[in-house]
Formats: sequence, C-alpha cells, structure tokens
Amino acid sequence: MIKKDLEKVYFENESEYLEQLFELLRIESVSNDYSKKEECRHCADYLVDYMSSIGLNSYIIETEELPSVFAEYVGDESLPTVLFYGHYDVMPVDPIELWKTDPFEPVIKDGRIYARGVADDKGQFFSFLKAIEYLKNNNLLRNSVKVLLDGSEENASVGLTAKLDSLKELLQADILMVADTTLTPEDDPAIVMGLRGMASFTIKMYGASHDLHSGVHGGVAVNPAEEICKLISTFYNSDGSVAISGFYDNIKDASEKELMHAMDSNEVDRDKYKSIYNVYPDGGENGRGQAERIGFRPNLCVNGISSGYSGDGSKTIIPAEAMAKISIRLVPGQNPADVLRNATKHVMENANPVLRTVVEDGAAHGVGFHLSMDGELIETAKGILEDITGKSAKFLWEGASIPIISSLQEVTGAQPLLVGFSTEGDKIHAPNESFPVESFKNGFIYTGMLLARSQ
Amino acid sequence: MIKKDLEKVYFENESEYLEQLFELLRIESVSNDYSKKEECRHCADYLVDYMSSIGLNSYIIETEELPSVFAEYVGDESLPTVLFYGHYDVMPVDPIELWKTDPFEPVIKDGRIYARGVADDKGQFFSFLKAIEYLKNNNLLRNSVKVLLDGSEENASVGLTAKLDSLKELLQADILMVADTTLTPEDDPAIVMGLRGMASFTIKMYGASHDLHSGVHGGVAVNPAEEICKLISTFYNSDGSVAISGFYDNIKDASEKELMHAMDSNEVDRDKYKSIYNVYPDGGENGRGQAERIGFRPNLCVNGISSGYSGDGSKTIIPAEAMAKISIRLVPGQNPADVLRNATKHVMENANPVLRTVVEDGAAHGVGFHLSMDGELIETAKGILEDITGKSAKFLWEGASIPIISSLQEVTGAQPLLVGFSTEGDKIHAPNESFPVESFKNGFIYTGMLLARSQ
Repeated sequence: MIKKDLEKVYFENESEYLEQLFELLRIESVSNDYSKKEECRHCADYLVDYMSSIGLNSYIIETEELPSVFAEYVGDESLPTVLFYGHYDVMPVDPIELWKTDPFEPVIKDGRIYARGVADDKGQFFSFLKAIEYLKNNNLLRNSVKVLLDGSEENASVGLTAKLDSLKELLQADILMVADTTLTPEDDPAIVMGLRGMASFTIKMYGASHDLHSGVHGGVAVNPAEEICKLISTFYNSDGSVAISGFYDNIKDASEKELMHAMDSNEVDRDKYKSIYNVYPDGGENGRGQAERIGFRPNLCVNGISSGYSGDGSKTIIPAEAMAKISIRLVPGQNPADVLRNATKHVMENANPVLRTVVEDGAAHGVGFHLSMDGELIETAKGILEDITGKSAKFLWEGASIPIISSLQEVTGAQPLLVGFSTEGDKIHAPNESFPVESFKNGFIYTGMLLARSQ
Repeated sequence: MIKKDLEKVYFENESEYLEQLFELLRIESVSNDYSKKEECRHCADYLVDYMSSIGLNSYIIETEELPSVFAEYVGDESLPTVLFYGHYDVMPVDPIELWKTDPFEPVIKDGRIYARGVADDKGQFFSFLKAIEYLKNNNLLRNSVKVLLDGSEENASVGLTAKLDSLKELLQADILMVADTTLTPEDDPAIVMGLRGMASFTIKMYGASHDLHSGVHGGVAVNPAEEICKLISTFYNSDGSVAISGFYDNIKDASEKELMHAMDSNEVDRDKYKSIYNVYPDGGENGRGQAERIGFRPNLCVNGISSGYSGDGSKTIIPAEAMAKISIRLVPGQNPADVLRNATKHVMENANPVLRTVVEDGAAHGVGFHLSMDGELIETAKGILEDITGKSAKFLWEGASIPIISSLQEVTGAQPLLVGFSTEGDKIHAPNESFPVESFKNGFIYTGMLLARSQ
C-alpha cells in the first residue's frame, strides 16, 4: 500500500526531485581540497535551508574541520527515534582529464546520473530527505527523526568524530540508519553486516639534498626510489599476507554462517571480476575466498607512490626523496592505534638505515565492526527490500569504511541499519562516478516504507 | 709564456666573455621538452652566427631530432686536426620551485655562475670557443680545428648519432677534445680515462581500468603500485648487485694500476660524501670501493616511479597503473642491446603475471669505454693542467655517460682527450646548477695552451 503510494509520488515528481538533486550535486563540496572550503560551507548552508524548508529544525554543527549539518523532527516519543547519517562531502575529482563530462554538472545517460558524489553520498541521502518530506507533508511521519550530514566523511570524519561526545544527548536514538553502502555485486538488495576500519599514514624517505646525476653517483649514492620499493616489498609475505608483526593477532575467523552468507552475497567469479574491472581479484591472502578477504580480513594498500621524474622522455637522476601513501583496512579485533604503531615500527626496522625515513600523517580512523544478523529491525528491513525489488535481500560484509559509524553506535546507543543502493558500476572515488536513477527511486521508497513500518 | 698571455687576455676581457656566455645561457635550449624545440633551433642558429663572426666556416647539421652545429677552421694540414665536441642542449629545469633564481637568467654569486646548462655544457664549450677566437685573432692558430656542438646530448645524442656515418669524412681528426667532464671530487684537475655507457627503459604496469576504491577492493584487486615495488626489488640482490641474468658477464675487473689511480682521484671519504650530498655512498655492490663502483662497475638506477595519489591529504584508492623509469650505466664488455634484452626478460619473468606489464622507450645509448693512460697527448695535457693549477693532475674514471663519444672515436679515428672543469658542487641536472668562474677561466687557458702546444 505505502509502497504503491511512494512509487506513484516518486514517478509524479521524479523530474522535480532530480532537478533538486542536481542543484546539490553542482556544489563542489570536496572536503580534501582546502581551496574548496567555502564550497563545502555553502553546501552545508544549502542543506540547512533545504531541511528548514521542509519543516525540520535545522542548523550547522561547527567542528574543527568542515561544518556538519543537523536537523530534527520531534514526533511521538513513545516510538523509536530514527537517526539518519549521511555525508555531503565528496572526493577530489583528479585525474580530471579522465572525466567524460563535467563532474559538477550532472547529466543523465542510459539510466545513470553522472556527477562526483552522486553515489557517495549525495544521491543516497537526498532520496532519504525526499521520503521524509513526503511523509511529513502527508501526516504520515510519526516517529522522531534526526538527520546528521557529515562534512568530512571522506576525510575520516575527523571533525565530527572529535565533537561526538559533546553531542551525546542530541544524537540519542534507537535506530541509526545509514545510506552510504552498496547492493551486492549481483545488484541484489543488501543489508550491510560489517564494515572495515581504517588507519593511514605516509612514508617519506630522504636521500641526497638534491636530485643527483645518476651517472656521476649511480651505484654510490643510496637511492630513495629504490629503497622505498624494497621497503614496501617487506610489507608483504610471499603468500600475500601482511608481514607487520602482530597484524593478525586477536582477529577472529568468520563463523560458518557468516562465511556462507558472505559467499552468497559477495563472491564474484574470477573471470567476471576481470571482465568488469580489467584486473584479477588475486590480491591479498592466498587461500581465502574473495568475500572473506573483503569482509573479514585486514589489508595494507599502497594508495600512491612517487619519486623522481615521471614526465616525458628521460631524466637521469637519483631522486632526492621518495614518498608512499598507505592505508590499512581493519577488522574487528584490531586496534587502529596499535596497528599504526606496529606499522611504524615495521618501517623503522626495515627501511635502509642510512636514509632518513619518516612516518607522518599517521591517522587511526574507526575500528572495523560486524553486526548481528538476528533481530526484528533486520527482518523488517529485509522484508521491505524484498518487497520493493522482488529479489532476495542479502547480508553483506563490506570492505570499505565509514569510520564514524562505530563511534555513532557507541554514542547514540542506536542499532545500526546499513542499507544503501550504490552499485558496483558507480565508480565511486574514481572519474565518471554515477548512480542509477533506479537506485535513487529505491532509496526513496525504502526510506518511506521503513519509517512508516517502524511506527 | 702562452699561459701568462692567456691569463692576461682573460682578465682584460672577463666581463665581456661572461656577458657573451650569459646571452647563450638565456636561450632555453631544453632538448627533452618538445615545447622548447624552437628555442633549441634558435640556440643552434645563434652559435652558427657566433662562430661565423669569429671566422669559422659554420653551419647547421640537420638531424631527425634537434639540429647540431658544425664549424671548421682549415689550418696547416701537416699538423694534427683537432675536433672539439660539446653540446648546446640543457636538461629540463623541473622542479622549478626549487630554483633560487631564474634558471635562464644567469647571475654570479660567490664566484659561481648560476644558470641551467652553465656547467653542462655551455660554460665549458664556450670557454673553448673564446680560446680559439683569441688564438685566431692573434695568428696563433696553426692546426685545423673542427667544432661539433650537439643539440641532443641530454637525449643520448640520438639525432647526431644516427647521422655520424654520413659525416665520416667531415669529422676526420687526430684529436677528439671533449670538455663535458669534471675535476676530481677534491677539485684536482683531471683527465677522464673512462665513461660509462647507458641503456634506459620505462616499465608500465596496468591494473584495473580505473582507480578502485581501496576499501571495496583492498585485498582483492591486484595493486600495480605494490606490484611495481615488488618487481623493482627483484632487480637487486641482497649484496647490492644487480640480479638481472648475465648482467656482469664479460666485464673485466679494473687493473691494479687503474684501481690505484681511481682510488687516488675519486675515492671520497664516507662522512665527507655524506656532508656534501646529505646521503651515504653506500649504494651499489657491497665490498667494492666507491671509485671502483663508479668507474668500473655497472649500475641499475630507478630515476623515477609514480602511481596513484601523491597530493595532500589522502585518497584511498587502488591505483589503476604504475610506472617506473630506469637507466642502466654500462662498463666495457656490456653490450647495451643485450643488457636491455635481459632487463626486459627479467621484468617479464618477475612481474606479477596477472597484471599487464609493458617495457617501453627501451633505448640503447653508447657503450662504456676506458682509455689508455699512456701516450704523448695525455702527457701534454697533464703537464698543461698542472702548469695552470699548480696541482697534480689525476686520471678519472667517471660514472656518467657521453653516449656519442665512443661512436665519434670510431667514426673520426681520433684519440679522445677528455678534460673538463665542472666541479662536484655544480649540481648539474638539478635545480640551481652552477659553474665556477674559475673553471670558465681555466677552460679558456687550458684550451689555448693545448692548441698552441699541439702544433
């Protein structure tokens, strides 16, 4: 009943909803780019205005980083309070030359909306806001609803996380709805049962005071470009596991039931993976399946490395320095600070001692967490997803991180419910990010049904 | 006598000579930058005009790359013909932000001229031209003199080398004077007895079709940034030697006499090296001295590596691709084409086979060569250098390459005589390149004396 209503409303208003979403997507709210600071604030102000206009009590939460946005509707206090979490910040667009259209001028092509941040996370949270708006305008919203839109999720939510303790009372809730996750690789609806945590750091190795001539000094001066390669190689054992001491201590293997569900939702055929991504899924630990490696195993990833000359032609130098950016995905049992400490120790013990080596920007983001598959809320959400899509809803242990979720769970006392509609083809964090119009619609209907059902 | 005359002339005309040199230095003749192609041609034209103005028969030699410049003075044909080789092209200036002054607006500070290309090689060959000019104007030039100024030495002389066979007759000479080398690290005058050859190539490793989210795919997708580090590590044995199969075949150890001279001219105390360059001279093969490693041993050097994100903050991606630029310095006995073939084979055998790996831009530059320490020409040059400087002249086996020299030696039938005045502090190929005014003066006097003496 409510599903049909919501579908009808959506189709009657689709072009208006999309135009409003486009307006949001045009705001260049890149949190990791200092030059976009004002655009980020503009985005926060825009969202406060928007949520005020639909009747929520809305305001900015200032942090030491970018502002977050909070909004509240006070409903029947005997019913569960729903706290909704999303983020308005987006990733940088580089390499910009690989975008086929302007990342901040959304276009629809073949049923997909193309724009930076449309899947991660503007399109997702905006479908939620439209659902609240509909329920409220039609006197169907009875629960208290709180909305928290983070301004620096792509920067590990550092600003908001530091404020959480002071927001404890404000954020008290029973259900923590998060819409920043994906369908299964087969595009089945999914309830996310786990996310990995993250720690990250940068390694710098300093050699000569300036680039040296590779003829005059080659075979004599120690070369940071070579040494950083040797150092990075020491992070990995020959079986693909991470060689940092104590890295796997206290990690529990997945239960048989978890593994069975994970295999069902997230195991992609090797050749199919290759055909989608143009690379084989053969990274990480040998002898463990892909769904297990993503959902239940930690990983150390080189996000970037640079040293010396990489332009056209050749420049025969021994580079003066080298740099690598590393991120580690964590699973339950791993303490981010301990892992960072051990990784730093590993660098110091394995780097060529005659070079000056520095570990900097070390950041312990959230811990990894796994949720219980049992309980009424999960059952309700599963039922709604199956009703909307006509497909069996799966349990998914994702490899990505939403660092703030575990902190929010702790501070708010709410039960997390992670359902999102991004698809594998959305290319989040990469050029030509997109989001299916179908997903936007399903986000709207799911949210509406869940809020109506939780009364 | 002639030394005093040349000194007197130099000091009387120093400011004019330097102003003319500055004019040459202002021309941005960067051969490895296509956008500077016209500047390179302008530099060649400028040099033709200049050498015509001092009475040499001068013209452009067109090549498939940048033009070279040839000039000739026909003297007494019963006397030895001297062919002088230098190069007017210079290295790129990046990273430009590290230059303290404009690289193409020369300034003198503390007895040094600062400008791109001043030591390598404009200041060196221009001191030679000024000496010819003086001798000629004063009827002191009796030998036939030929001047060959290369337009793409920094690009391994590819253009000129390809033309050499067709220039065989034009370039016939008895003595091949080259002024593109250095003093000893102790600033003693030096006659270079050996140069290394070079081969170079680029490795590219291709993973996913676009950067992947390091959470969603970390521990699953194979990461080119990690794999290129592992691959580069396989180039080196734990004793610092190069692990490419057959790399050291056919290399002869230095003779005791050569090693003794090399130790005398080119062995720098470890701590002193560190204090000059801010890095220890502990690269290359363990158990061999520094002078031996530079002059008599080959080396594989990573000139640059890049993959993924290296900007501010973090970008949690698995890079789609990775790239490394490699150059190999060769010694006599190594055939550049064979070494390249073996290096390529090594890459293909050691790269992770599930990634697409490509070796490209493979270029076999000149072979390494060693000269005889005996003979009249060497004695004469040694005597002149000791006369000018009051210091004992040393024999130096340099690690750098002037790829065209061995080809020129073969084509012209001339005996190479490599004497240059660049110093270790000149930072050639790096930001803030400079050249001592004293070296410019000594180049002028040495050239004048040698031409007068070889009659």
